[in-house]
Amino acid sequence: MDKIGKYEFLAEPFHCDFSGRLFMGHLGNHMLNAADFHSSARGFGMKYLMTINRSWVLSRLAIEMEEMPQQYTKFNVETWVESAMRYFTSRNFAVTGVDGKVYGYGRSIWAMIDTETRQPTDIFSIDNGAINDWIVSDKDCPIDKGGRVKMSDGAELIRTIDTFYNDVDINGHINSVKYIEHVLDLWDLDWYRTHAIKRFEIAYVAEAHAGDKLSFYQEHTADDEYCVRIVRTDGTECCRSKVTFTKIS
Amino acid sequence: MDKIGKYEFLAEPFHCDFSGRLFMGHLGNHMLNAADFHSSARGFGMKYLMTINRSWVLSRLAIEMEEMPQQYTKFNVETWVESAMRYFTSRNFAVTGVDGKVYGYGRSIWAMIDTETRQPTDIFSIDNGAINDWIVSDKDCPIDKGGRVKMSDGAELIRTIDTFYNDVDINGHINSVKYIEHVLDLWDLDWYRTHAIKRFEIAYVAEAHAGDKLSFYQEHTADDEYCVRIVRTDGTECCRSKVTFTKIS
Repeated sequence: MDKIGKYEFLAEPFHCDFSGRLFMGHLGNHMLNAADFHSSARGFGMKYLMTINRSWVLSRLAIEMEEMPQQYTKFNVETWVESAMRYFTSRNFAVTGVDGKVYGYGRSIWAMIDTETRQPTDIFSIDNGAINDWIVSDKDCPIDKGGRVKMSDGAELIRTIDTFYNDVDINGHINSVKYIEHVLDLWDLDWYRTHAIKRFEIAYVAEAHAGDKLSFYQEHTADDEYCVRIVRTDGTECCRSKVTFTKIS
Repeated sequence: MDKIGKYEFLAEPFHCDFSGRLFMGHLGNHMLNAADFHSSARGFGMKYLMTINRSWVLSRLAIEMEEMPQQYTKFNVETWVESAMRYFTSRNFAVTGVDGKVYGYGRSIWAMIDTETRQPTDIFSIDNGAINDWIVSDKDCPIDKGGRVKMSDGAELIRTIDTFYNDVDINGHINSVKYIEHVLDLWDLDWYRTHAIKRFEIAYVAEAHAGDKLSFYQEHTADDEYCVRIVRTDGTECCRSKVTFTKIS
């Protein structure tokens, strides 16, 4: 079996924004699905892990796009494991067109936890470190690795939202994809008429639960670059995100 | 080509609720996709209609489920045209498992509009009434047709929400699928722990736009039956919905 998985998706009409381009949240969802398809086919997917009380937990996701697929376009998400360490693995993505066109790339970092203790566990303990057989070291992912999103205390509270039934995933936590949507909802349609998302980055820090209020603190950190801290009801930081835009005409 | 289209979908992890069952909004989206795949393959899909300044507009959708597909389950959405009239066509759905299992059914009513004047147009004008070649009169869809959702003036305002970037579709209107999510968000997790959605019905009356506030008026119309009226900022009614629950243990 190929070390790189390649999965076809469609930019469905109701998954596209007012400009006819795929929403970033749905692209993120496709990447998470591709990760799951790839790992499942190779013996270390979520469904198998559930049977041994283990689970992958997404720690970081960065997506950098030249262009977003347009409504009704078929595109591929390619994914592969770039490296694995005891407590973290890094998985990359390429978003490509049927004709070899490159839309963009993604990078993600995952931990593995024990679903009973919620503590990190040794990734190499799964099938004698079998994940090492799937590492691809020679495929390029030419976007920045990212890292800790630095924010000052000067970040401003710009919105607080309630969370509802549709925000909650099978673990009872606020759905990772919904955070992406809530962050990008901080800008209005007028902004998106003149700005495309160049790079979207999110680090998942702590879980929020159904009924939690989420507060969004925003800081303008560079020209067309914004950082956002999401804080749940009890004041704990849940996520930190960085969004970079490019101006479009 | 078969008059009935059959499309396979997967109950993706991030499309499932806290109980591991597919969200109704995502099932609705799959039905709308199936409708689009079916009509496109038979010459009267959205993509073709756009080229002649026509568009299908969803007027009503009713979904009645025995059971919702569970996380990671593959299921089919079958769809067919039940009848066509000059200004409305009715399209049905069956949600089935790979083993012939029946999860539930759907019914929808569509109008066709001129995208320039936004006025209804004659469905039979497309390719000399070609839609008549695709009518299936002998396939059962054993759920109620529904009809006008009756509500009194006693309906109570229970929530008002803002609409954001991710709520808006390619036409600049609030996305039909998002209305389903917003309605079902009126009940909390505790409710869904003891109640499954037996039937969901929505009628789209007028469009709302980015930035509109949506107010939800709810009326308890029968045992485990609730009606919801959604009203936009200027007081115009946008949607009316009826949700019937069954108790689960």
